[in-house]
Amino acid sequence: MEHQRAVEPHDVVDLITTKRFGRALEPDEIAWVVDAFTRGAVAPEQMSALFMAIVIQGMERREIRDLTAAMIASGERMDFTGLGRPAIDKHSTGGVGDKVTLPLVPLLASLGVAVPQLSGRGLGHTGGTLDKLESIPGWRAALTTDEMREVIREVGGVICAAGPGLAPADRGMYALRDVTGTVASVPLIASSIMSKKIAEGAGGLVLDVKFGSGAFLPDLEVARELAATMVQLGADSGLRTVALITDMDAPIGRAVGNANEVRESVEVLAGGGPADLVELTLALAREMLDLAGLPDVDPAPALRDGRAMDAWRRLIRAQGGDPDAPLPRAQTRETVRATSSGIVQRVDARAVGVAAWRLGAGRARPGDPVDHAAGIEVLVRPGDRVEAGDPLFELACDQPKRMDRGLGLAATAVELGDAAPAPRALIADRIDADRIGAASIGG
Amino acid sequence: MEHQRAVEPHDVVDLITTKRFGRALEPDEIAWVVDAFTRGAVAPEQMSALFMAIVIQGMERREIRDLTAAMIASGERMDFTGLGRPAIDKHSTGGVGDKVTLPLVPLLASLGVAVPQLSGRGLGHTGGTLDKLESIPGWRAALTTDEMREVIREVGGVICAAGPGLAPADRGMYALRDVTGTVASVPLIASSIMSKKIAEGAGGLVLDVKFGSGAFLPDLEVARELAATMVQLGADSGLRTVALITDMDAPIGRAVGNANEVRESVEVLAGGGPADLVELTLALAREMLDLAGLPDVDPAPALRDGRAMDAWRRLIRAQGGDPDAPLPRAQTRETVRATSSGIVQRVDARAVGVAAWRLGAGRARPGDPVDHAAGIEVLVRPGDRVEAGDPLFELACDQPKRMDRGLGLAATAVELGDAAPAPRALIADRIDADRIGAASIGG
Repeated sequence: MEHQRAVEPHDVVDLITTKRFGRALEPDEIAWVVDAFTRGAVAPEQMSALFMAIVIQGMERREIRDLTAAMIASGERMDFTGLGRPAIDKHSTGGVGDKVTLPLVPLLASLGVAVPQLSGRGLGHTGGTLDKLESIPGWRAALTTDEMREVIREVGGVICAAGPGLAPADRGMYALRDVTGTVASVPLIASSIMSKKIAEGAGGLVLDVKFGSGAFLPDLEVARELAATMVQLGADSGLRTVALITDMDAPIGRAVGNANEVRESVEVLAGGGPADLVELTLALAREMLDLAGLPDVDPAPALRDGRAMDAWRRLIRAQGGDPDAPLPRAQTRETVRATSSGIVQRVDARAVGVAAWRLGAGRARPGDPVDHAAGIEVLVRPGDRVEAGDPLFELACDQPKRMDRGLGLAATAVELGDAAPAPRALIADRIDADRIGAASIGG
Repeated sequence: MEHQRAVEPHDVVDLITTKRFGRALEPDEIAWVVDAFTRGAVAPEQMSALFMAIVIQGMERREIRDLTAAMIASGERMDFTGLGRPAIDKHSTGGVGDKVTLPLVPLLASLGVAVPQLSGRGLGHTGGTLDKLESIPGWRAALTTDEMREVIREVGGVICAAGPGLAPADRGMYALRDVTGTVASVPLIASSIMSKKIAEGAGGLVLDVKFGSGAFLPDLEVARELAATMVQLGADSGLRTVALITDMDAPIGRAVGNANEVRESVEVLAGGGPADLVELTLALAREMLDLAGLPDVDPAPALRDGRAMDAWRRLIRAQGGDPDAPLPRAQTRETVRATSSGIVQRVDARAVGVAAWRLGAGRARPGDPVDHAAGIEVLVRPGDRVEAGDPLFELACDQPKRMDRGLGLAATAVELGDAAPAPRALIADRIDADRIGAASIGG
């Protein structure tokens, strides 16, 4: 059906119909619809119909580039050159127990790489870096751009909330996708992430693209496609981008929640911590050092010799937090035990993430509060032998009703079998501009 | 992403995701989402995303039946038994110059068949029966159910606006589809039409399912699928349903507009009128007589001997109109002439419909006014030989700006060629319950 809209250069129903039939949208159509949605000339119900058509029919690379450019154009661009040291950014597509940002940023800061880390909050079964850090008494996520630069100058890195100025179009678009079943789409995820990262203006970007049950896109091939799309978008914008494709089928580390994830991060900064969490932290650190022009620096010693821990303490203090204050802890703890014997085949990250969410560690809607003390300790890994009665998870939560829901869900997360499971590499693949043949135009 | 909605039995994001992957929705999910949308618990942006997933991924017959049942359940059911004569309903999927309802209802009334015709208004390039009849001074479309029964008793038929009580869920759903590019979908069109027709409670239903450029679904095979779906839905609900598949590639008759279509209808009721319009009117009348148990009654004589005209005059008067009052007529008339010579290959119904809409005969949005005097006379038919300078269309409109737009559009509607075009049958197919193997359970 056609509509007369005298003041607008395009008809949104025509655009929706074009994509509904799987045809490509023109650059001016994409620029217009992002702008028109942001200023309210395209209604949410029209944009969500367009999103669903994109989710099912896809977009060409050129369309994704145009969509990313339109979202960047909706806001300001930052600039982290002139800090006296290279600024390298990092982004994870999100997972369960993924607290890597917490040790990674001070680790890099201690090695002379500035990380201007704009982080987000958790939603659904995945946690958010800011929620975790807010377990620390006094720590604050909201910084002005000037404060952010000041913390970087003082500490060498910063972890804070993205201000409203970067790709503001994405905020409304993501909020709409979240409630309309249109999140899981390579074009929409890639443009959402990369618009903010390109606008942030760092000198390089390392992506941690997750696959497996706890990831937004569980399929490895789809994760590869997402990674390649984002690396290409970075290259197109002169942002050198490298992606690691990492396994999110089991939670990262043992702690899933907020305060307990901070505790585990501090263990890593003290030279200990779970092996998978250390491996992922160091792998990402090496990629960031490489992009910073420091390919020969080994990050591992800085975790052992206290340099990274010192940077962590400075970072927390610079943002108002007390690194020595006790973290919130739930009084009630319950253990989920194995009901039979066998070898652990899987620890389903998604099931653990949903259980932690039900305990109160996560939120259903943006803006909801989280319970910093609630969470899960994962006591087994794939390949472990367990006997009936052995502990699998320890759950912490002071609300009995939530505890009951969490216990029921956590009990479903471990799968036992007779044989040893096939080993899974934590880091499944690595994609850079050379690999995909992207014409990098420099950073 | 999952959401906690404690008070609702289903999560709309789960439903959207199910359909996004092309899986079938369960009966209770369909019943819930229609009800939840109607009471505002599912937001328009969620429903439109679900619609787009349905448009692209389709629905199984069982899902379409559940959707239709859910829309019927949202409102009241009427009952036209006990009138002392059979009540047979008719529906057209809409077209350009399709004024068949105007002669058809009084024709059937004159032959002892009650037609409780709930009609609609035009939108976009297609006209609406109520807009056409409102050209007649005094005639009113809005009747209460009691008034409707009274007119049927007095005249034998009625043409009026559907009240708010029949399948009210469809109203909000259609309005949403109209602005979100989700109109053209067999499951959504079939359930929208049949929910109202089944709720109306007639003893039989004849469908005029259009294909060709002026139809909502131009493809013949898609029109067949729509017709078969609706015939099956009728059979499933005990409403005997027959569908004619008819050609809407060229306008029906010569007149496209409002008042001029009433004039042409009166010509048919006077025993004259364009051959295609008479053919379609009689074909639909024969199907309706057959469903009424009067297969041996020939409707053609009633058009010639004044019986249908008498019924028309009674019908117009019973709803407040004056059948003898002059109809609105534009003072300004312009002629579109052929710029070359040849044989008319096509008269594009859609182009003519859009031209009439631009003249003011149609509306862009529900609730907009229409200009009853504006319209087009189509002076050539496919197969006609024309010389350069011969008239093709006569346009009527008193607003010079609109006239210019209409003239430009109408000029594109005729395609000339050297050879005679392949003849097209007006009635391309007929589908009934026997044809599709539907288990009719009686009416």
